[in-house]
Amino acid sequence: MNNQNILATALVSVFAFTAAISHAADPLPSWNNGKSRLSIVDFVEKVTKPGSPDFVPAAERIATFDNDGTLWAEQPMYFQFLFAFDRVKVLAPQHPEWKDKEPFASLLKGDLKGALAGGEKALMEIVGATHSGLTTEEFEKIVREWIATAKHPATKQPLTGMVYQPMLELLSYLRANGFKTFIVTGGGIEFVRVFAEQVYGIPPEQVIGSSGKLKFEMRDGKPVLVKLPAIDFIDDKDGKAIGIQQHIGRRPIAAFGNSDGDLQMLQWTAAGPGARFCLYVHHTDAAREFAYDRESHIGKLDKGLDEAAAKGWTVVSMKNDWKTIYPAGN
Amino acid sequence: MNNQNILATALVSVFAFTAAISHAADPLPSWNNGKSRLSIVDFVEKVTKPGSPDFVPAAERIATFDNDGTLWAEQPMYFQFLFAFDRVKVLAPQHPEWKDKEPFASLLKGDLKGALAGGEKALMEIVGATHSGLTTEEFEKIVREWIATAKHPATKQPLTGMVYQPMLELLSYLRANGFKTFIVTGGGIEFVRVFAEQVYGIPPEQVIGSSGKLKFEMRDGKPVLVKLPAIDFIDDKDGKAIGIQQHIGRRPIAAFGNSDGDLQMLQWTAAGPGARFCLYVHHTDAAREFAYDRESHIGKLDKGLDEAAAKGWTVVSMKNDWKTIYPAGN
Repeated sequence: MNNQNILATALVSVFAFTAAISHAADPLPSWNNGKSRLSIVDFVEKVTKPGSPDFVPAAERIATFDNDGTLWAEQPMYFQFLFAFDRVKVLAPQHPEWKDKEPFASLLKGDLKGALAGGEKALMEIVGATHSGLTTEEFEKIVREWIATAKHPATKQPLTGMVYQPMLELLSYLRANGFKTFIVTGGGIEFVRVFAEQVYGIPPEQVIGSSGKLKFEMRDGKPVLVKLPAIDFIDDKDGKAIGIQQHIGRRPIAAFGNSDGDLQMLQWTAAGPGARFCLYVHHTDAAREFAYDRESHIGKLDKGLDEAAAKGWTVVSMKNDWKTIYPAGN
Repeated sequence: MNNQNILATALVSVFAFTAAISHAADPLPSWNNGKSRLSIVDFVEKVTKPGSPDFVPAAERIATFDNDGTLWAEQPMYFQFLFAFDRVKVLAPQHPEWKDKEPFASLLKGDLKGALAGGEKALMEIVGATHSGLTTEEFEKIVREWIATAKHPATKQPLTGMVYQPMLELLSYLRANGFKTFIVTGGGIEFVRVFAEQVYGIPPEQVIGSSGKLKFEMRDGKPVLVKLPAIDFIDDKDGKAIGIQQHIGRRPIAAFGNSDGDLQMLQWTAAGPGARFCLYVHHTDAAREFAYDRESHIGKLDKGLDEAAAKGWTVVSMKNDWKTIYPAGN
């Protein structure tokens, strides 16, 4: 090749590259054009544009996402409870006393309603019994194996296929614009971390969640961390703002939730100086997903809906704003 | 310019760039050539070389650093206590009862020995009284203002100038090789975060430390997080391994400490599969810094020194391995 040819080749490469960029210009293909989508793009453009009065340095572009009901489905119950229920069945032979002890007795008879009659206390008992007594590594392995095959009771789809395609695009779009994306979930931190990196592109150190106490122990000269049946932190409501402070130590500039449990995270985010973005995912699509809000036992969105209206936060209607709900090919 | 000139200009740029790289080839200029330095470079090269049997993907290149005595000095006492003592003086007018109450009474008379006679309990009382009752934002502002002017009692140097230059180079070297660097400190998480980004290049979300409980509160319609006088977590000894699990959720492949308080972090790091690197900074330089180990009340290094010898961990002699201790120009 002579010099002119080298130059020509280089120029062709540059044009090809530019074409590739403009071809990939729609980072949110599953979002309908409308107010919700526009509000997202407007915010991202103004905080990333150098010289803009709303410009935010990359290190401060922290975005936090609730998980259940915001990144993946949460009906008819939080998926982690499906794990806990399956785990009760696996552990039952080691616990003959469960046959006569609620909530385990009902659960083992397949009577979910009876098991849940004990309310939150019963649920916590089930979670305690199924999420402790293991090392962190044993627990991770069990969750990894479980989630690889677990199916949704109604749709029969793999649970990790019931993530929201428009939210996956939003996560990628934010990261492509220099944001650091975090999960801030009421779910168990060690449960969600197992799949967050593969499914959402969010590494374990960017997952904040509820946790149990841990104990450092030497076993055959090797250190292990044992999961104790004692709650360490509940990452819900007030706990979401507190968890953000303890783990991130920097206030998010954007926060995404779907329920009243996320309200304090959105309030905390909104109260900082400069441009801020708060978004609620509103479950309005009974045909393609589920429709619920103010009266729901799971993912209740009542106060949050009022505050979003009062403060001008973005409220995404899954029915109207999203072209698709789940990724293709499930 | 014609095409040939453009090409010539481009080639000159490429050569200049290559020369700049090879000129900057020593990433650890303050480290003497010797076993310690060699062990670091060997480890980094083998875990970053594609195709090497010890190769570790970038996402898993987690390196954790103790702060006091590992990244900056800790004698004659942890610098955070200097902050707490200064704070007692500032707050004294609001606490007339301190005149007759230990450890405050001794402290206010300038009798440090008397104040510390109460041991850890007295210290915790001082920390509790000076680190709570504020919002997280108020506390951050106070620490920021204090550290901008605080001087070391013996050297009269700014405290942030008493960081170790060789460790700053090590942090940069690891990051340039795709590592994510974390601080795992027994010190207060909200204290260290104030200067960690500017001084060490470590953002707040990569600082793990001891913490107090927080309370979410609305004040004039604005959410605040109030620091309560109750301990939430002590990030020392067993707590270092636990803190790493809770915050990072992934085992480090390299860990750096200087005392027995770091031993569990090093054990936890060493116990993972694949290539691992553990390093102790040994304070051996009475002339340029301080010399202490097995008998010291602060930064005691006793069991750790034995275990390092038994396991073949790197033990850095500050006297022999480091050309300089502090950054130039303090």
